[in-house]
Amino acid sequence: SKFEYVRSYEVNDACLPNCWIVVRLDGKSFHRFSDVHSFRKPNDERALRLMGRCAMRVMAELSDVVIAYGQSDEFSFVFHRRTAWFGRRASKLMTHTVSLFASSFVFHWLEFFGETVLRFPPTFDARVVLFPTDRCLRDYLSWRQADCHINNLYNTTFWALVQKGGLSPSQAQERLKGTMTGDKNEILFSEFGTNYNKEPEVFRKGTTLIWQKAEKKTVTQLPKTQVSRLDELGSASTYLSKSQKRHRAVVALNVDIIGEDFWQEHQEILAD
Amino acid sequence: SKFEYVRSYEVNDACLPNCWIVVRLDGKSFHRFSDVHSFRKPNDERALRLMGRCAMRVMAELSDVVIAYGQSDEFSFVFHRRTAWFGRRASKLMTHTVSLFASSFVFHWLEFFGETVLRFPPTFDARVVLFPTDRCLRDYLSWRQADCHINNLYNTTFWALVQKGGLSPSQAQERLKGTMTGDKNEILFSEFGTNYNKEPEVFRKGTTLIWQKAEKKTVTQLPKTQVSRLDELGSASTYLSKSQKRHRAVVALNVDIIGEDFWQEHQEILAD
Amino acid sequence: SKFEYVRSYEVNDACLPNCWIVVRLDGKSFHRFSDVHSFRKPNDERALRLMGRCAMRVMAELSDVVIAYGQSDEFSFVFHRRTAWFGRRASKLMTHTVSLFASSFVFHWLEFFGETVLRFPPTFDARVVLFPTDRCLRDYLSWRQADCHINNLYNTTFWALVQKGGLSPSQAQERLKGTMTGDKNEILFSEFGTNYNKEPEVFRKGTTLIWQKAEKKTVTQLPKTQVSRLDELGSASTYLSKSQKRHRAVVALNVDIIGEDFWQEHQEILAD
Amino acid sequence: SKFEYVRSYEVNDACLPNCWIVVRLDGKSFHRFSDVHSFRKPNDERALRLMGRCAMRVMAELSDVVIAYGQSDEFSFVFHRRTAWFGRRASKLMTHTVSLFASSFVFHWLEFFGETVLRFPPTFDARVVLFPTDRCLRDYLSWRQADCHINNLYNTTFWALVQKGGLSPSQAQERLKGTMTGDKNEILFSEFGTNYNKEPEVFRKGTTLIWQKAEKKTVTQLPKTQVSRLDELGSASTYLSKSQKRHRAVVALNVDIIGEDFWQEHQEILAD
Ligand SMILES: Nc1nc2c(ncn2[C@H]2C[C@H](O)[C@@H](COP(=O)(O)OP(=O)(O)OP(=O)(O)O)O2)c(=O)[nH]1
Ligand SMILES: Nc1nc2c(ncn2[C@H]2C[C@H](O)[C@@H](COP(=O)(O)OP(=O)(O)OP(=O)(O)O)O2)c(=O)[nH]1
Ligand SMILES: Nc1nc2c(ncn2[C@H]2C[C@H](O)[C@@H](COP(=O)(O)OP(=O)(O)OP(=O)(O)O)O2)c(=O)[nH]1
Ligand SMILES: Nc1nc2c(ncn2[C@H]2C[C@H](O)[C@@H](COP(=O)(O)OP(=O)(O)OP(=O)(O)O)O2)c(=O)[nH]1
Ligand SMILES: O=P(O)(O)OP(=O)(O)OP(=O)(O)O
Ligand SMILES: O=P(O)(O)OP(=O)(O)OP(=O)(O)O
Ligand SMILES: O=P(O)(O)OP(=O)(O)OP(=O)(O)O
Ligand SMILES: O=P(O)(O)OP(=O)(O)OP(=O)(O)O
Ligand SMILES: [Mg+2]
Ligand SMILES: [Mg+2]
Ligand SMILES: [Mg+2]
Ligand SMILES: [Mg+2]
Ligand SMILES: [Mg+2]
Ligand SMILES: [Mg+2]
Ligand SMILES: [Mg+2]
Ligand SMILES: [Mg+2]
Ligand SMILES: [Mg+2]
Ligand SMILES: [Mg+2]
Ligand SMILES: [Mg+2]
Ligand SMILES: [Mg+2]
Repeated sequence: SKFEYVRSYEVNDACLPNCWIVVRLDGKSFHRFSDVHSFRKPNDERALRLMGRCAMRVMAELSDVVIAYGQSDEFSFVFHRRTAWFGRRASKLMTHTVSLFASSFVFHWLEFFGETVLRFPPTFDARVVLFPTDRCLRDYLSWRQADCHINNLYNTTFWALVQKGGLSPSQAQERLKGTMTGDKNEILFSEFGTNYNKEPEVFRKGTTLIWQKAEKKTVTQLPKTQVSRLDELGSASTYLSKSQKRHRAVVALNVDIIGEDFWQEHQEILAD
Repeated sequence: SKFEYVRSYEVNDACLPNCWIVVRLDGKSFHRFSDVHSFRKPNDERALRLMGRCAMRVMAELSDVVIAYGQSDEFSFVFHRRTAWFGRRASKLMTHTVSLFASSFVFHWLEFFGETVLRFPPTFDARVVLFPTDRCLRDYLSWRQADCHINNLYNTTFWALVQKGGLSPSQAQERLKGTMTGDKNEILFSEFGTNYNKEPEVFRKGTTLIWQKAEKKTVTQLPKTQVSRLDELGSASTYLSKSQKRHRAVVALNVDIIGEDFWQEHQEILAD
Repeated sequence: SKFEYVRSYEVNDACLPNCWIVVRLDGKSFHRFSDVHSFRKPNDERALRLMGRCAMRVMAELSDVVIAYGQSDEFSFVFHRRTAWFGRRASKLMTHTVSLFASSFVFHWLEFFGETVLRFPPTFDARVVLFPTDRCLRDYLSWRQADCHINNLYNTTFWALVQKGGLSPSQAQERLKGTMTGDKNEILFSEFGTNYNKEPEVFRKGTTLIWQKAEKKTVTQLPKTQVSRLDELGSASTYLSKSQKRHRAVVALNVDIIGEDFWQEHQEILAD
Repeated sequence: SKFEYVRSYEVNDACLPNCWIVVRLDGKSFHRFSDVHSFRKPNDERALRLMGRCAMRVMAELSDVVIAYGQSDEFSFVFHRRTAWFGRRASKLMTHTVSLFASSFVFHWLEFFGETVLRFPPTFDARVVLFPTDRCLRDYLSWRQADCHINNLYNTTFWALVQKGGLSPSQAQERLKGTMTGDKNEILFSEFGTNYNKEPEVFRKGTTLIWQKAEKKTVTQLPKTQVSRLDELGSASTYLSKSQKRHRAVVALNVDIIGEDFWQEHQEILAD
């Protein structure tokens, strides 16, 4: 039609070749969302596992994600530096990721929250960030995991002071002003008998999703909600060949990804 | 933390000031999605009304959308040329829009599809397109409505030939090859007694959402699913002042938006 | 060759269609450049006319510039909102503009500075700015001309105090701190008998270049350095048709472009 | 002033951190420029050396260029992956580079072309290309040097056939159609007694500029036009510390940069 010229107003926002592409999404106003839906404080395992379930769907469905990391109301997906998915168009990458995540959140809500009724559909933002080197990609993931640690230690201590210590929120805030990591560990231990390092790893480390060869025993041993079913993995991929994709499954880990060990053990993640 | 430097890898993708900002979303692989969920052919009113319901949520929730237009598996949202929402960041605009739409789609599925079970969460892509002038914005909307007309006339004739005329899909395709608008109207009328212009307007014109002063009688007269409730409209807006937002509601229309009449009647849409 | 894949790392930086494209260039470290080459203070007419000469070359050579405005060490070139020159690629537009301007500066130096030897080749930066409406384009040009006025009034008063009033630069600076337009006019008039409004218009208004039909008498009456020769105007243009380009010449004006009069008189500049 | 809001229409086009930034410039219509100024065919050493002289100025003046490579009417400048010069703004990098190059071209013309009068100021385009890895940066430089080889072998054979072989240009073109590297070497050797590998390296390899410690004897031994004077190197740099910049000079080489040897010998170029 004579109106078709408006197509030329679209821009091609292809990402620079050969960079790691990270899509990070984050829940909009989850402070309010968690209040309205009575999330447990400081951590609601149902919420965290629902987030992980959604991320698994994204990873199984969207080609070429090599690792994903999530904590709180956010998740980061790393597309392989050579992915050609949707011509590396940034808008396609972020909108497919975030819309599948958001629809999955409602789709799976019942499995995790049971009788707690979902009051309104949640929203997430998303952004694309590019990393030219393995080093800065790893620093990015470390940044998010360090953030998880800092927030979680604070929140754990804060809610211990409030829930067990009987302080008001503003008193607890005052008490924690200017404290360092050691101080908070000390408060938890001496006042509440809590060894922070014994807290569940899913709270302290967040959730890391990676691909695992399906032959490995661990896959079938993991609980069902943590492993995407193999038959979900059939979608077309531009970067990974069929044979590479066959026989693999997504596994969820709650481990340190800042140190070298994880990356030594899983060299395939960043491999070419 | 020492990893925080990676923040500097993010880019600010603010849209050029003073341009109309369109976010268009489109269902991913809805050819398959409509098959799996047995959408009626050529048009499934449940699907179209569900799309409209989701768009209403977006419009009520996301500030500064002045008009939205949808057809088939797509919807376009027009943000006011002076919107300052999220600093006009393109990624924020498109991901909030598409993720709220996608989560709403699952959230409201039951209201429209009843016993038809949703088999898997749907995905949508989205993109931002900028238009410097009112003229090219209107041409954009005309482009989408002309597309609706062309596809719908084709599909209506195609499925008449198949469902009522007993042709196989490939025979119907062959029959329609090279036909013009008049030819298809003629086939529909002479062979199936169908006057295309009497087909439901929601199929022929798509769905247009605009804001209406709440005082107007029409608002309360419209069926509930077509009008967003006034109390949903309380979210903060950067462009529209409180007084402007109060007392208005979203209404769904199925009218021609290519000609001058619509724009003459609704001059407030493009007003400064 | 097998290295050719690196071509895919280039990005297409085409400007949004239907926006006015402004390329502004500005001399790098002209504070130092003007010192080294003993520019007259506060204004060196040789320098300003050399700048204008270079801009004329740019305008005659680069297609589709409809107006240019310069003052001090800067010049802005406005490409027509429909120009298709070099596919509207921003990098092509700014680099061709700035490199022709810079090479012309050296090329024409002798004509304006005579025995003052050019000590080193000058550098300019350049940038592209887009304007969706006529209004904001005009506000842009007004911004530059207002800047010219503000700086020139200050500099004129400052150097009067120093050169004629015997103040040291820091005394003059102190004297002018916090003064308004009226104050400076008053100082000039009462202390130095200078009516600022009688100062040369090239200093107060800057230089505006536009196209003029060659038939008009004014063209041939203007001094040669101010009018580009008709036979320089033969270069290919993507936007303007041959017949439009024939018989026109660039003229330099030193007039107010903030008010309505200029634009009323020259409606062809912003015409479609 | 009230017009200042237009500043917000400028965009920040900072390059992605941690990528190599290449600015490549290329003469506009140098086919015509070389004709008008009677460049020698197939190679005009004066032109090539003038290009090298301009590039030296750029390298000495613009901070953080670690290597530059030129051939024919083009030059590529590689800014260090960590440069913070002008906030890595792409427009600043390309326009400063290209405008200094263009003004230098006119400035130094006389030194190389003597009585051949410069008829009009030349123009160059420029673009920014980013490379995330050392490998793709090297492939980029290899691409340009391979291009130099291919064109030069063709041109050398073509002009031998025309100038010495008495063929018309179109006959020579016909003769070379479909020939491979070996064929052209053979024509040159058997018909014109020319051993292509003995042709001047500046023609076959192009010109590579790098920094060298000033102590090294080679610096002072090189002819003056090939080595930028130390006292030109005083300009501020954001990436290199003063002590790193002191005592170094630009040297011009005409060597292979595709193989490993060059990079083994000059590991400092890509060093962090
Ligand atoms: N109670 C509870 N709250 C949680 C949990 N996970 C996340 N949240 C809440 C606490 C934080 O207020 C919020 C995440 O912080 P954000 O910085 O993303 O803020 P928020 O989403 O409110 O605003 P935003 O729209 O992202 O700017 O989500 C949880 O497991 N339990
Ligand atoms: N039966 C039926 N199908 C519909 C209806 N609305 C949309 N669809 C289907 C028919 C089309 O195949 C599809 C929309 O066309 P698209 O060009 O968006 O293709 P699709 O979504 O398959 O691929 P995409 O991922 O967008 O490239 O959705 C409906 O009301 N009834
Ligand atoms: N004496 C004299 N100086 C002039 C004349 N025109 C421009 N200049 C000088 C005065 C200013 O210091 C300078 C222009 O100001 P800018 O803000 O562009 O600063 P400058 O070029 O030094 O730095 P930049 O590299 O643009 O950030 O050029 C003139 O006619 N006479
Ligand atoms: N005779 C002669 N010509 C040269 C020499 N170096 C470059 N040239 C000419 C030959 C080519 O036609 C031209 C460079 O090719 P380009 O692909 O850059 O084409 P040109 O600059 O004409 O067009 P452009 O504006 O870059 O698209 O410069 C030389 O040393 N001698
Ligand atoms: O949302 P914040 O405050 O945690 O920080 P951010 O996500 O980097 O900020 P923004 O959402 O505005 O990009
Ligand atoms: O999806 P299509 O084929 O209708 O056309 P498009 O949406 O413009 O194409 P793309 O989704 O690839 O941008
Ligand atoms: O150069 P200035 O300070 O006049 O202001 P600007 O040109 O807007 O700043 P920049 O050159 O850094 O874009
Ligand atoms: O100029 P060409 O044809 O050698 O190739 P290019 O420089 O890649 O093309 P363009 O100048 O149009 O970017
Ligand atoms: Mg945020
Ligand atoms: Mg959040
Ligand atoms: Mg968060
Ligand atoms: Mg599409
Ligand atoms: Mg679709
Ligand atoms: Mg569609
Ligand atoms: Mg500046
Ligand atoms: Mg300057
Ligand atoms: Mg200036
Ligand atoms: Mg080119
Ligand atoms: Mg060229
Ligand atoms: Mg070239």
